[in-house]
Amino acid sequence: MIHYRSIFHVLSALLLFMIVVLIIPLLISFNFAEPDEIAFLQTMGVLLIVALPLFLLTRGEVTLDIKDGFLIVTLGWTLYALFGALPFYFSGFIPSYTDAFFETMSGFTTTGASILTDIEALPEGLLFWRSLTHWLGGMGIILLSLAILPLLGIGGMQLFKAEVPGPTPDRLTPRIKHTAELLWVVYVAISVIEAVALKLAGMNWFDAWCHTFGTMATGGFSTKNASVGAFNSGLIDYIIIVFMIIAGTNFSLHYRAFKGKFFSYFKDPETLTFMAIILAATVFIAIDILSILGYEQFSFRHVLFQVVSIITTTGYGTSDYEQWPILSKVVLIILMYFGGCAGSTGGGMKIIRSIILFKFAINQVKQLLHPNAVFVVRVGKRSVPQEIVTNIAGFTLLYILLSIIGVLFMSGLGLNWETCIGSVAATINNIGPGFGSVGPTENYAHLPLIGKWFLSFLMLAGRLEIYTVLVLFVPIFWKR
Amino acid sequence: MIHYRSIFHVLSALLLFMIVVLIIPLLISFNFAEPDEIAFLQTMGVLLIVALPLFLLTRGEVTLDIKDGFLIVTLGWTLYALFGALPFYFSGFIPSYTDAFFETMSGFTTTGASILTDIEALPEGLLFWRSLTHWLGGMGIILLSLAILPLLGIGGMQLFKAEVPGPTPDRLTPRIKHTAELLWVVYVAISVIEAVALKLAGMNWFDAWCHTFGTMATGGFSTKNASVGAFNSGLIDYIIIVFMIIAGTNFSLHYRAFKGKFFSYFKDPETLTFMAIILAATVFIAIDILSILGYEQFSFRHVLFQVVSIITTTGYGTSDYEQWPILSKVVLIILMYFGGCAGSTGGGMKIIRSIILFKFAINQVKQLLHPNAVFVVRVGKRSVPQEIVTNIAGFTLLYILLSIIGVLFMSGLGLNWETCIGSVAATINNIGPGFGSVGPTENYAHLPLIGKWFLSFLMLAGRLEIYTVLVLFVPIFWKR
Repeated sequence: MIHYRSIFHVLSALLLFMIVVLIIPLLISFNFAEPDEIAFLQTMGVLLIVALPLFLLTRGEVTLDIKDGFLIVTLGWTLYALFGALPFYFSGFIPSYTDAFFETMSGFTTTGASILTDIEALPEGLLFWRSLTHWLGGMGIILLSLAILPLLGIGGMQLFKAEVPGPTPDRLTPRIKHTAELLWVVYVAISVIEAVALKLAGMNWFDAWCHTFGTMATGGFSTKNASVGAFNSGLIDYIIIVFMIIAGTNFSLHYRAFKGKFFSYFKDPETLTFMAIILAATVFIAIDILSILGYEQFSFRHVLFQVVSIITTTGYGTSDYEQWPILSKVVLIILMYFGGCAGSTGGGMKIIRSIILFKFAINQVKQLLHPNAVFVVRVGKRSVPQEIVTNIAGFTLLYILLSIIGVLFMSGLGLNWETCIGSVAATINNIGPGFGSVGPTENYAHLPLIGKWFLSFLMLAGRLEIYTVLVLFVPIFWKR
Repeated sequence: MIHYRSIFHVLSALLLFMIVVLIIPLLISFNFAEPDEIAFLQTMGVLLIVALPLFLLTRGEVTLDIKDGFLIVTLGWTLYALFGALPFYFSGFIPSYTDAFFETMSGFTTTGASILTDIEALPEGLLFWRSLTHWLGGMGIILLSLAILPLLGIGGMQLFKAEVPGPTPDRLTPRIKHTAELLWVVYVAISVIEAVALKLAGMNWFDAWCHTFGTMATGGFSTKNASVGAFNSGLIDYIIIVFMIIAGTNFSLHYRAFKGKFFSYFKDPETLTFMAIILAATVFIAIDILSILGYEQFSFRHVLFQVVSIITTTGYGTSDYEQWPILSKVVLIILMYFGGCAGSTGGGMKIIRSIILFKFAINQVKQLLHPNAVFVVRVGKRSVPQEIVTNIAGFTLLYILLSIIGVLFMSGLGLNWETCIGSVAATINNIGPGFGSVGPTENYAHLPLIGKWFLSFLMLAGRLEIYTVLVLFVPIFWKR
């Protein structure tokens, strides 16, 4: 049974919360005396008119079931994108509502794909709101992957059920609340540290906060047309590299580190693999660039930055990787699919799933030699239950299937190979910039309307671990 | 334990059999009084010198185990390519041994990828040998997939254990022998029918037989530079379409049809899905070409031919599909991965695996809604055991992993996106012509040496359902 009243109550509460959040960009807009303050007020008005009556009409005890969880998550993200787009649209700075929706969905899904051809033309209030959508989306994702998805049983996220500190109560709400509070504190604390670091490194407070939002959420929206490259500062680059890695790591490990258990990182197989892949990819691409393009075209800092930016699915840029040799570009596409660690703000398929699948595939080969033996997938000291392995295999196949459908769809719009593959990989994995005509020095503005709506769907599906969205398309979901 | 003596005995017997087979192209060469007869005699001499002593030295009772099965299959195919390449090399018509090996591996794996820039320059004897490698490879594959792989437990092929007619004895050899005889008769009978049909449609006997070999094995080697398009005959095209479909269908169904049970085809879910995909892809591509290129560029016959040629992994061409819109090309790449039916000579992942995986993925989504329910994958009236589903999932992940490694490897050679993806898809799936610089009007001659050896490996791995080859790379294989 689907509890529509409870669902709408929660959703309207979420929309009312957006009104509160919008006060921040509104104040910034006032402060800079900009033309966009009306747009924020108009949006707040619309939200109030829509959400308040709904909230009041649906009052009563909130009862939620698994199905309701799926609906709230998918509809919540969609509604946030639909209404969050209004300031851009009302202000006239993004005249097409499709574009405004794409930009906002890209924000809340922490993708960072943009339709803006001149980012710097936007007033500070809108730029701040744009970056803030990342940060809110990032917080939503941590909560989702560490507290909600494990309860919904999504593709291996159950693995982390036990990781989250705190008691395991019988009812959903108190557990989520407790976890949320802890993670919120960690997320905010790390964000403050990064913002201060960026300020000390030479950014103004406005840029420091906006880039902190983009980093912590592994989003990638910048306030500059040239992205992080515009600051042309090694110090800033390295600060952002460090915080992208932090944002791409499981936040329950950060929580433990805050409690003094720094060694948790080094005991976690996923984190170690994550680091190893970053190192290997950097060396690999460095060799490729050095051997093909030569020493003049090589910068270790830029290679490392781009590798970290892509694997964490942030999408910030300091160099035009379109100019790299094709081997390096293929490596980047593969990194896009790896993605960050589970329980981080990173997108993609997540490192832990790749580890489990790789071991599972090896086991299947071994099984041929010993048909009657039982091979168990082990990660660190833990053995992974067979049903979770099966679930992850199913997840991966659906992920690949959706990517293939994506490339098929985009090719129907007449784009070239590189753009089809690049745009799908960059959105389903929530990176932002892709390849071809949606590469790091270009944007998504030129795509046909239908392509923008489709890619918005991919961003959402990828961000919500696809199952959450696809489950709504299965007929039995809607049966009583 | 690996029974090396028995393995070498079987392998040397296989090589001695090749001497017998080589008599046919030798006779053709004599008949046409061509310069390549010496090359065949030299090859036969080399085979005799290598294989005969080995055969005699390893005499004794043949004892074979699972591991021996893997070794014989992989080494058998490799040795056939290594020695089968000699006539091309000795005759000087393919001066590079790498090229000769690539061409022969392409033949025995029924791929049909060629390094020849002028096929028609070859004498009849060599052309016949080239096409004959397909036909022998095709027979080997039917035997492998219907009799040997099920015993080795490879990726879902167990499904067909019960399908093969005849008793199920305890020991390996009599069972294989019996199955082999039955399938051999069916394979030869259908081949004769096709050759006669092609002769009646206007081909000479030489072309009729060579194209029959290419069709029945879903190989794709032609005697003409312009492939089947050279005959420019609707009748020939349609005959080949029909026989490509037959070759892409499970041969145990043909066996039943020979016994009068024609309706077996219509009761088999894999065959029905196979037909449905062909129909859907043809309509889809037809609409794409009509809407983008217009009516002048459209020919139903050519579209149907290319769809059937690609999904059955034959690779014959009657039109340059590189000129088609990108959407159609993406559809073709997807068809390459679908491949033919299990138990056919077709390559690719096989239709039955796609069916099972698709149902498995849907079940995983349903599982979220009913965590405690048990969802079983059903194909037709049969339910597929969970371990086979898991095995197929592992197979698919390895297949995709190998494709990704393939694209990575080829991109290291500095080829463009289209060629990297096209060459890997066309070889691992045993199609032949790919996209980009290895497209239907071009060939593999220009690739670097290392690329040719690597693609040869992909052809072999793809043809032998990857597990058979990969299992040799697992350390426990070699442990006692």
